[in-house]
Amino acid sequence: MESLFSARIKKVPRSFIREILKVSLDPEIISFAGGIPNPALFPLKELEAATAKVFAEKGAAALQYSNSEGVLALREQVAARYLHTHGFQIPVENILITCGSQQALDLLGKSLLDEGDRVLIEEPGYLGAIQSLSLFQPQFVPVPLAGDGVDTRAMAARLAEGAAKMFYCVPTFQNPSGLSYTESVVREVADLARKNNFLIVEDSPYGELRFRGERAPSFYQFLPEQTVLMGTFSKSVTPGFRIGWVVAPPVLQEKLLIAKQAADLHTSNFTQMILAQYLEDNDLDKHIEKIVKLYGKNCLMMEQVLAECFPAEVHFTKPDGGMFLWGELPEGMESMALFDYCLAEKVVFVPGEPFYTNNNPTRSFRLSFSCVNEASIREGIGRFVRGYNAYAASL
Amino acid sequence: MESLFSARIKKVPRSFIREILKVSLDPEIISFAGGIPNPALFPLKELEAATAKVFAEKGAAALQYSNSEGVLALREQVAARYLHTHGFQIPVENILITCGSQQALDLLGKSLLDEGDRVLIEEPGYLGAIQSLSLFQPQFVPVPLAGDGVDTRAMAARLAEGAAKMFYCVPTFQNPSGLSYTESVVREVADLARKNNFLIVEDSPYGELRFRGERAPSFYQFLPEQTVLMGTFSKSVTPGFRIGWVVAPPVLQEKLLIAKQAADLHTSNFTQMILAQYLEDNDLDKHIEKIVKLYGKNCLMMEQVLAECFPAEVHFTKPDGGMFLWGELPEGMESMALFDYCLAEKVVFVPGEPFYTNNNPTRSFRLSFSCVNEASIREGIGRFVRGYNAYAASL
Repeated sequence: MESLFSARIKKVPRSFIREILKVSLDPEIISFAGGIPNPALFPLKELEAATAKVFAEKGAAALQYSNSEGVLALREQVAARYLHTHGFQIPVENILITCGSQQALDLLGKSLLDEGDRVLIEEPGYLGAIQSLSLFQPQFVPVPLAGDGVDTRAMAARLAEGAAKMFYCVPTFQNPSGLSYTESVVREVADLARKNNFLIVEDSPYGELRFRGERAPSFYQFLPEQTVLMGTFSKSVTPGFRIGWVVAPPVLQEKLLIAKQAADLHTSNFTQMILAQYLEDNDLDKHIEKIVKLYGKNCLMMEQVLAECFPAEVHFTKPDGGMFLWGELPEGMESMALFDYCLAEKVVFVPGEPFYTNNNPTRSFRLSFSCVNEASIREGIGRFVRGYNAYAASL
Repeated sequence: MESLFSARIKKVPRSFIREILKVSLDPEIISFAGGIPNPALFPLKELEAATAKVFAEKGAAALQYSNSEGVLALREQVAARYLHTHGFQIPVENILITCGSQQALDLLGKSLLDEGDRVLIEEPGYLGAIQSLSLFQPQFVPVPLAGDGVDTRAMAARLAEGAAKMFYCVPTFQNPSGLSYTESVVREVADLARKNNFLIVEDSPYGELRFRGERAPSFYQFLPEQTVLMGTFSKSVTPGFRIGWVVAPPVLQEKLLIAKQAADLHTSNFTQMILAQYLEDNDLDKHIEKIVKLYGKNCLMMEQVLAECFPAEVHFTKPDGGMFLWGELPEGMESMALFDYCLAEKVVFVPGEPFYTNNNPTRSFRLSFSCVNEASIREGIGRFVRGYNAYAASL
């Protein structure tokens, strides 16, 4: 059987996150590892009401095959939301509904990447993107992150070595670092894309979850003709519906549509119709306010407890939104080794390795603050520091 | 932008079926083209009841991220159904839930196919499989269908020319032909697979929709260790939920799971939970009986009207189940040319071309009998014959 496997699938590692999630099932473990939204904030009653309406008003049409582009009413809601939040006029024809924004990566990989094509990616970068795109056997070209976004000087240097097809990035509340790009970095990257003819794939799963600071710039403002926008309702409404979207120029959209059709014909029109109904009947801004309030409180609390408990040589980012903090250990330490000490103390996080394309040991790690509270933060960070101290003492 | 496209996506044709579906939106057109189930038979009330239960009993868990394998209760239902319908003991671990069975093709392509790998496929064969697998740039090796299944002598000859990685087939009520494999053909193909070490991918979207004859054999009976089973609830319950599955040996299942995770993390647990609840609370056999009764009646009626109206030199298959009839025109005619004459008479069908991998003109065409009734059959076939006569007169 193994002799029948493709070259591509042999190279894709099993996700470390999956392994951590299994460990996290132990109820005694406090987990800062997950990347999942807080289920207490799901609009359960509202979605139930929207579902009842869809059954009553759409009937069998909600259960039949549908088009590959997605349900029109939902695509119109996505367009209306871009206008509302960003002032972008996006034609509905440029919006394709996907099974979570994760699927947009798969469709983009299929439409754009041949083996060996160069893909610029943030370092550290979203591990789901690394996993998804790696199936198309590109050459990943990592570009380090600085405090104000991706390092544009490093990017220019990498481009001088060879052309790239695309740059995948999460410029607002980046996963895993929580950092956001400044406008000047966005402008510089857009300039590089214009001059070097590569696509910018701007993923924004957390962009609306801002608890401090000003609205971040988007590449779409500066280079719409070369920007692909990815979005999702997973963090703002529910991940269980598996609904995301991708905005692309028409000539690319046509290819994405072919890839979508080949992948799964279409995303569930049943869940699309429910979501469209929910968005029509409810104020998403108000719902997001609730999420932001809780995550902001948690983040602040975590920053405070980390500052109290950890020695100054362990550094943490201070995100303005999203779900993640990013930590860095002093030189000589490795986050994977720390993981084992912390697991012994019954607290887990995500070591930095899966966010890098080179699999080298790292000193960094990700902490999520979406599904915790004051008690679990205090207890969990307490355990974390005990694990850290035990690791430090072992060196 | 075009310079950035991958080689694979440039080669995948836009689906002709999509174009036909657009034409079919004209309410004056009678369509025998669709491959969709009859929406009048969707268990709307029962699914509504199951949905209410899921909201009440699962709550936020139905809306949260879930595992990539699929919801356990649903996988258990799939396993129980194989035991009930086929007597197969299939471990739940070997079952992966997919977004329609279409997605299983994508995951198999990713896990098995490198560029140039040989894929045996029925000729004519399921166009969605041709489209999906073509993204992985295999070399399709078409093997013609005979009345009793695939032509095993031709298959042996093609295997003598070079090894193949897999054989994709729909052995029961095949799409597009409506034909079914006999047990001796299944045994012979299984022998060829054993000797030549290729996987048999047995897709069975219509297998349960039998209105005459005996239960068909499955490759799983004769060569389980090299057989992959694909299934779907799209034809038996609802396509709008986008739920299918793939059964594979553990070593392959592990790869499919990685591909699934990279593709979209997981299939909607919300729709999976509703479907599992529906299956727990209802008798699927009884529901399928209703579908079979209607499709059987329609098929018989269509056969009768075709026999009455068409000259004997136009041949039609006589399927024992499923949703399709397959016709063949006399030599010297082409179904694509016939299509235009029929469109002028406001009746459409699917010409044979998209079911072949070589894009040559064909004499064959597919008629669907799932969404018609006595009136539309009589009127539609009447128009069809007028189109046929006009075309014949033009030659």
